Amino acid sequence: MKSGKIYIIGIGPGGREHITPAALRAVEESDVIVGYTLYLDLIRDLINNKEVLSTGMTKELERCGMLMDFAVKGKTASMICSGDPGIYAMAGPVLEVLKGNSVEYIFSGDSGAGALKGSAIEVEIIPGVPALAACASRIGAPLMHDFASISLSDRLTPMSVIEKRLHAAAGADFVIVIYNPRSRGRAEHLKKAVNIILEYRPGKTPVGIVKGATRPDEKVLITSLGDVPFTLVDMQSTVIVGNSNTFTWGNTIITPRGYERKYDFTSVGPDEDPKK
Amino acid sequence: MKSGKIYIIGIGPGGREHITPAALRAVEESDVIVGYTLYLDLIRDLINNKEVLSTGMTKELERCGMLMDFAVKGKTASMICSGDPGIYAMAGPVLEVLKGNSVEYIFSGDSGAGALKGSAIEVEIIPGVPALAACASRIGAPLMHDFASISLSDRLTPMSVIEKRLHAAAGADFVIVIYNPRSRGRAEHLKKAVNIILEYRPGKTPVGIVKGATRPDEKVLITSLGDVPFTLVDMQSTVIVGNSNTFTWGNTIITPRGYERKYDFTSVGPDEDPKK
Repeated sequence: MKSGKIYIIGIGPGGREHITPAALRAVEESDVIVGYTLYLDLIRDLINNKEVLSTGMTKELERCGMLMDFAVKGKTASMICSGDPGIYAMAGPVLEVLKGNSVEYIFSGDSGAGALKGSAIEVEIIPGVPALAACASRIGAPLMHDFASISLSDRLTPMSVIEKRLHAAAGADFVIVIYNPRSRGRAEHLKKAVNIILEYRPGKTPVGIVKGATRPDEKVLITSLGDVPFTLVDMQSTVIVGNSNTFTWGNTIITPRGYERKYDFTSVGPDEDPKK
Repeated sequence: MKSGKIYIIGIGPGGREHITPAALRAVEESDVIVGYTLYLDLIRDLINNKEVLSTGMTKELERCGMLMDFAVKGKTASMICSGDPGIYAMAGPVLEVLKGNSVEYIFSGDSGAGALKGSAIEVEIIPGVPALAACASRIGAPLMHDFASISLSDRLTPMSVIEKRLHAAAGADFVIVIYNPRSRGRAEHLKKAVNIILEYRPGKTPVGIVKGATRPDEKVLITSLGDVPFTLVDMQSTVIVGNSNTFTWGNTIITPRGYERKYDFTSVGPDEDPKK
């Protein structure tokens, strides 16, 4: 029997131009496509000729089980994720379900896994442009310095852990990327997060809010920590809070890399050497 | 006179299959290509018919000055970055040099900037697959929970700030992604970082080290915090340190998302509902 293969594919933020050729190839090679309905809709025309199984938002483990079953039967089965599959997405649950069911797998990168032994299936993760990079590209250059990524969803993480991380990240002056800013439709989590960060940073700290980056209905808002319009933020939004050096310029947010401590920006024409 | 345009382009981790169509389109539209020699080599065949200006690693601001001058003269000029241009890369310095030279710019996403006013130039950032996502895809699923990204380069950041962030990230149980692990060829920075994290996490904490992810010479090493082979790590490597729940399984590193607290992984076949 043919050995099965699982692809865990990141299709990027949504715009068709931001799907990598590696992701398209993996979709093409697949017999079966599994994913959350909303993400499959982004590539519906590419999967017309496939067996497609979609489930709602909270059925993550059910999707993993379907994927596993097809691979064990010798099929090439793909899990579709938006953004990157390795950042708060399905790469982990898929591997955890395989482990939990004692299904042996060979993990491979581009270079191939070599000959498969016995009944083991192959697993390959195709990285994608993550939400944090897509959102940053829409508001300027906020991630030029160390940053912390924090999800406000308390579905699987105690709120006390989330709050501890917000304090740590704010206290050590990380740029902060907030995923799932409105957990289960509630606005209080983001309010709590903003209030924690306000203990360490002034209200004028730049904040960028991006929804549906690269999609036709993309929405971008540049505001400040003291003025976050909580009701405009939803689960599909990503919020980026600047560090103590971040500033706004025109309609962009910039976190300085630190060159200004050493160099004069006005003397860098092509005939100049900034190190002089 | 035609208005100039600046693209700041992420070409991803290196493998040709991981460059987005958006990045290829922007390269094609460009009159002039500017970048660090090593990154331009990854796409040399795509830029044969362009004016190409490359500079060494520490000449970042010189590259930005060149880019600005071409755009001011009405050209379409692109800055090539590996990974994502917004994460520790050139998006920030380009915008800072424009601001420092009082060059007005219109910042645009896919949706376009509308009509340009007067002499303003247009700036567009094309996101790419960042090193942290590419490296994670090679070692399993380490970034399934909150993570902090920290650069160990002290060229533009005081070591005291870097150490403070390492303490904060380790203390609040973030997965930690280490960029530039060997600053200017010195191994001591990574040793210092590992020792700080060891104050909070046991020596058996999983660590993944990836060099040249997706490139033909890709190297992947899975080890533990107490056994990091410092001499094998260089500036082109990315190091990912697990949190207190991260474990290794086969040749993969997995950070649990938290489902194990609520669900039984062995009962998620396609006929089962994990929420029952």
